Amino acid sequence: MSVSAYTGVIPPVVTPFNEDFSIDRESLATQVRRMIDAGVDGLFALGSSAEVAFLTRENRRAVIETIVKAADGKVPVLVGVIDTTTLRVAEHVADAVELGASGLVATAPFYVRTHPNEILNHFRLIHEMAPELPLYLYQIPVSVHVTVSDDLILQLAEEGVIAGLKDSSGLDGATRALIEKRNARNLTNFKVLTGSETTVDLNYFFGADGVVPGLGNVDPAGYVRLAAACTAGDWDAARAEQQRLNKLFQIVFVGDGARMGGSSAGLGGFKAALQHLGVFTSGRMAPPHVALNDEELATIHSIVDQADLN
Amino acid sequence: MSVSAYTGVIPPVVTPFNEDFSIDRESLATQVRRMIDAGVDGLFALGSSAEVAFLTRENRRAVIETIVKAADGKVPVLVGVIDTTTLRVAEHVADAVELGASGLVATAPFYVRTHPNEILNHFRLIHEMAPELPLYLYQIPVSVHVTVSDDLILQLAEEGVIAGLKDSSGLDGATRALIEKRNARNLTNFKVLTGSETTVDLNYFFGADGVVPGLGNVDPAGYVRLAAACTAGDWDAARAEQQRLNKLFQIVFVGDGARMGGSSAGLGGFKAALQHLGVFTSGRMAPPHVALNDEELATIHSIVDQADLN
Amino acid sequence: MSVSAYTGVIPPVVTPFNEDFSIDRESLATQVRRMIDAGVDGLFALGSSAEVAFLTRENRRAVIETIVKAADGKVPVLVGVIDTTTLRVAEHVADAVELGASGLVATAPFYVRTHPNEILNHFRLIHEMAPELPLYLYQIPVSVHVTVSDDLILQLAEEGVIAGLKDSSGLDGATRALIEKRNARNLTNFKVLTGSETTVDLNYFFGADGVVPGLGNVDPAGYVRLAAACTAGDWDAARAEQQRLNKLFQIVFVGDGARMGGSSAGLGGFKAALQHLGVFTSGRMAPPHVALNDEELATIHSIVDQADLN
Amino acid sequence: MSVSAYTGVIPPVVTPFNEDFSIDRESLATQVRRMIDAGVDGLFALGSSAEVAFLTRENRRAVIETIVKAADGKVPVLVGVIDTTTLRVAEHVADAVELGASGLVATAPFYVRTHPNEILNHFRLIHEMAPELPLYLYQIPVSVHVTVSDDLILQLAEEGVIAGLKDSSGLDGATRALIEKRNARNLTNFKVLTGSETTVDLNYFFGADGVVPGLGNVDPAGYVRLAAACTAGDWDAARAEQQRLNKLFQIVFVGDGARMGGSSAGLGGFKAALQHLGVFTSGRMAPPHVALNDEELATIHSIVDQADLN
Repeated sequence: MSVSAYTGVIPPVVTPFNEDFSIDRESLATQVRRMIDAGVDGLFALGSSAEVAFLTRENRRAVIETIVKAADGKVPVLVGVIDTTTLRVAEHVADAVELGASGLVATAPFYVRTHPNEILNHFRLIHEMAPELPLYLYQIPVSVHVTVSDDLILQLAEEGVIAGLKDSSGLDGATRALIEKRNARNLTNFKVLTGSETTVDLNYFFGADGVVPGLGNVDPAGYVRLAAACTAGDWDAARAEQQRLNKLFQIVFVGDGARMGGSSAGLGGFKAALQHLGVFTSGRMAPPHVALNDEELATIHSIVDQADLN
Repeated sequence: MSVSAYTGVIPPVVTPFNEDFSIDRESLATQVRRMIDAGVDGLFALGSSAEVAFLTRENRRAVIETIVKAADGKVPVLVGVIDTTTLRVAEHVADAVELGASGLVATAPFYVRTHPNEILNHFRLIHEMAPELPLYLYQIPVSVHVTVSDDLILQLAEEGVIAGLKDSSGLDGATRALIEKRNARNLTNFKVLTGSETTVDLNYFFGADGVVPGLGNVDPAGYVRLAAACTAGDWDAARAEQQRLNKLFQIVFVGDGARMGGSSAGLGGFKAALQHLGVFTSGRMAPPHVALNDEELATIHSIVDQADLN
Repeated sequence: MSVSAYTGVIPPVVTPFNEDFSIDRESLATQVRRMIDAGVDGLFALGSSAEVAFLTRENRRAVIETIVKAADGKVPVLVGVIDTTTLRVAEHVADAVELGASGLVATAPFYVRTHPNEILNHFRLIHEMAPELPLYLYQIPVSVHVTVSDDLILQLAEEGVIAGLKDSSGLDGATRALIEKRNARNLTNFKVLTGSETTVDLNYFFGADGVVPGLGNVDPAGYVRLAAACTAGDWDAARAEQQRLNKLFQIVFVGDGARMGGSSAGLGGFKAALQHLGVFTSGRMAPPHVALNDEELATIHSIVDQADLN
Repeated sequence: MSVSAYTGVIPPVVTPFNEDFSIDRESLATQVRRMIDAGVDGLFALGSSAEVAFLTRENRRAVIETIVKAADGKVPVLVGVIDTTTLRVAEHVADAVELGASGLVATAPFYVRTHPNEILNHFRLIHEMAPELPLYLYQIPVSVHVTVSDDLILQLAEEGVIAGLKDSSGLDGATRALIEKRNARNLTNFKVLTGSETTVDLNYFFGADGVVPGLGNVDPAGYVRLAAACTAGDWDAARAEQQRLNKLFQIVFVGDGARMGGSSAGLGGFKAALQHLGVFTSGRMAPPHVALNDEELATIHSIVDQADLN
């Protein structure tokens, strides 16, 4: 039988860097405590928002270590074991298990082109490496350039290989269709977390079990309130909270697309906000990211100031 | 000033595995000596055909070590430093330099979405890590899901950041256009190697400087003859050799696409051929690859037998 | 100033054929009256669900004529003027105006690759052809292979060129973001209709003004009830109705993907249901569609029977 | 049995417009006679370079009529019957047959998503409409967003449904692979024309039977010489001619991509050159194309002047 998956508000923790791109453990621990104080249900270490694809193995270990220690058993810590293929993922699984992960999050293979049978192999092998930890399939086509089909997801769920889905497809209608199939096949033990921070109300409305909001780094309390309103079925309150958060979310679009990519603008926005809030000492991003300029930073600060965080 | 790039026939060496997926160093060394004996101009370690995306750092170090040792200074050994982003690539660069690489081959970042400015940053930073080694830009959109533009390539060439291109775009017309622009801008020091093993004659015809043929693992002598005919301007001989090789290339299409992906079929074909030829002791591929079945292996053996290798 | 756009439940009318692929005007009129009796707010003639891309100009004229006549002024009739480029669209606009259309629906150009400036030109020219009719931009990337950006849509809205959007992007989160921008720019006169029949409750929840549901051909009363519940803010009732409709929507997935494309399966499902309900005399689709087989038809009939239509 | 396909240099004739976007028949006839005088083997009316997707049915008829009349039986006139689906194509086939076409050129369906079975249906039905005319399959994924597979092409060739291929895939390596399969299956009666005007030498080298060069509108004599050199096996002369033409081809890249799409720049370049050469009285393009500006026109004129046309 499959182990149980964690649900609720589980933000993907953003990674602060020192000047030499080692992990700024102090800022990271501060941020972890701040999010736990705000009432989040769990933390997701080493997701895409953590710049996982920019981190060496040593960096990744430092991140897990710091987050697990700062979380201090108060909330579960899911760990991303994200790499191109199975043998490389295996190293990250070993690290995560050794360092106290509460669950694992893995994508389909990338760089290589894969057949559904190979994706099945991949997840089955990962599950065998750590059968005691709930494994989430991380659906993120924008990064891995493949969409794992509903049929394959539900097959892995039925086999007890995966306990949950972290869905960053951005296709809420497709997520709803998956949830309806899940329910029809009586697999409600299989949990669905959305990664779409601007449609959390919708996702709860049609049956999702939680959210992994990058913006939850900036306003964790907002997402906790939002999830509470959803759980209570108070959709008007949920929508109002969501709309407030969606205004704050504009910080990820400030970076000029003529000068930088979406990752620089998005993570840059999160990090600039966290520095502005006094949580991080720097908004530094790993290379080859492009930094935000002063004008962009000022715009982001202004959006944060207007967001009525508390 | 930029260091000089290597040219000619530089096959990407396929990686044999032991049962535990450690590197089968003996088979690998045998294969290296076999290719050098056949007259190749260089070797490319840790390319896509080497299952680089399936290899841990330790595995990659073992591959470099084995190839450099077996090559014994007779031909240069280019080393793929392929990973998602700059800091992770840096580790591979350090390993390659330490272990005696003659040149480096790097792709654009992947998993993350990048702006051209970020791609520029990436290659400039890699070049700074090892300015004494010629750096090749590895154009492989099928894996990294971005095509580096001609303008950006030639800018990096003019800056002396990259010394060559390893072009696996599969777009011969586009490669020709790039070469024509290179020539017009008097950048002929910048070398272009095609990765398209079925159109080598064409690529030489329009000005390419060499080839990195995966199929050169199976028939290195064929590619050496082919390049020689091209260099001599004997296009009829070149075409005849190319057509013979293209028949042999059918081994990569034997694996059933209903059961496996292109990587399993393609690398499976190369490895099955090398085992059949007595070079490798096994055709094993890294997980999550799917293995060829007996019928498929028999077909591949038969194609190899008919190919008139010598 | 822009003319006003129609809102509410506006199903895209499916087109029944005679044996020679002329329009079965009688079935079509029956279906129009049936949907009006069910309480729809308008009708959309010659959308993708109408097989508009399979219809000759003569066929299209027959469709408009029949629908306008059967609608008898009781509800507005929007008409799709869908073709590759401006001059060809112009013919359809002339036909639509002549035959009594209440509004026009046009896509971005297709077959040809276009720049945003060319898309702007296209819609401005179409609007000039019939300034008295509200023009809807039909966002349908799956067909035209371009996504018109929010900026361009809102620019056209501000200019008074387009009065509404028919959004078949399938990206509800993106639709919400557009609506939030529209509201922030005080352009609420610009109306957004979703084409996503399985997420109508969500779309109303975040501010959409209506829906163009293909499935509304089969169960128009269901969509009318759904929209009413949404308008009343009774989200529990809306969700229950939506979930019932989503079960019925499974008829579009019955056709075997190994034998036919999504258009054959989807339109085939709608037409088979309409024949089963006695509205159409045939489920015939235009060539080169592939027909459903008896087993598939039986499955569709069974789904319809269980859907509790009334 | 299949009818024979035409081969050799068969330029796609560019369409000149009067101010009201009716066809400028005089310029068109002049251009036809000019190309025939230059020695072309045939003409292709209503291809993508003819702005076929911008032409009403009446416009298309005028183009066919004018070209057939001006060609005066001296060379065959292939006619593009390009539209979304079968019934709409049928109208163009009827027009083409009535107006004296020597052969037909059809794409896979577009706007609609199709299964291979539906593509098979489509071409079989088109062939039945005019079995006496050779039918070419027009492979143009950039426009129709589907690539017809080699297996399907060769099946249609074996059935006698299609007599040739007009290949605008831009993938010369894939074209070579198709030709090698064709030869292996003894289907050499099935003819392959490339639409890649910058790699004609390569295509002849690996077995193509002809070329449909848009640039042949500007320099038909160049392509005639190029094809003659290829046929004679004089590859050095062929390459030199090709390289000269490739410099001239730069006219299609002059239009600024920040202001217009590839069609405006490319067709704009051809038309500006033809006006500069005194063949067309205007470089006008159909809406919603964006016009080249004076600076761009001057650059194009200069490239043409340097191209040593005669």
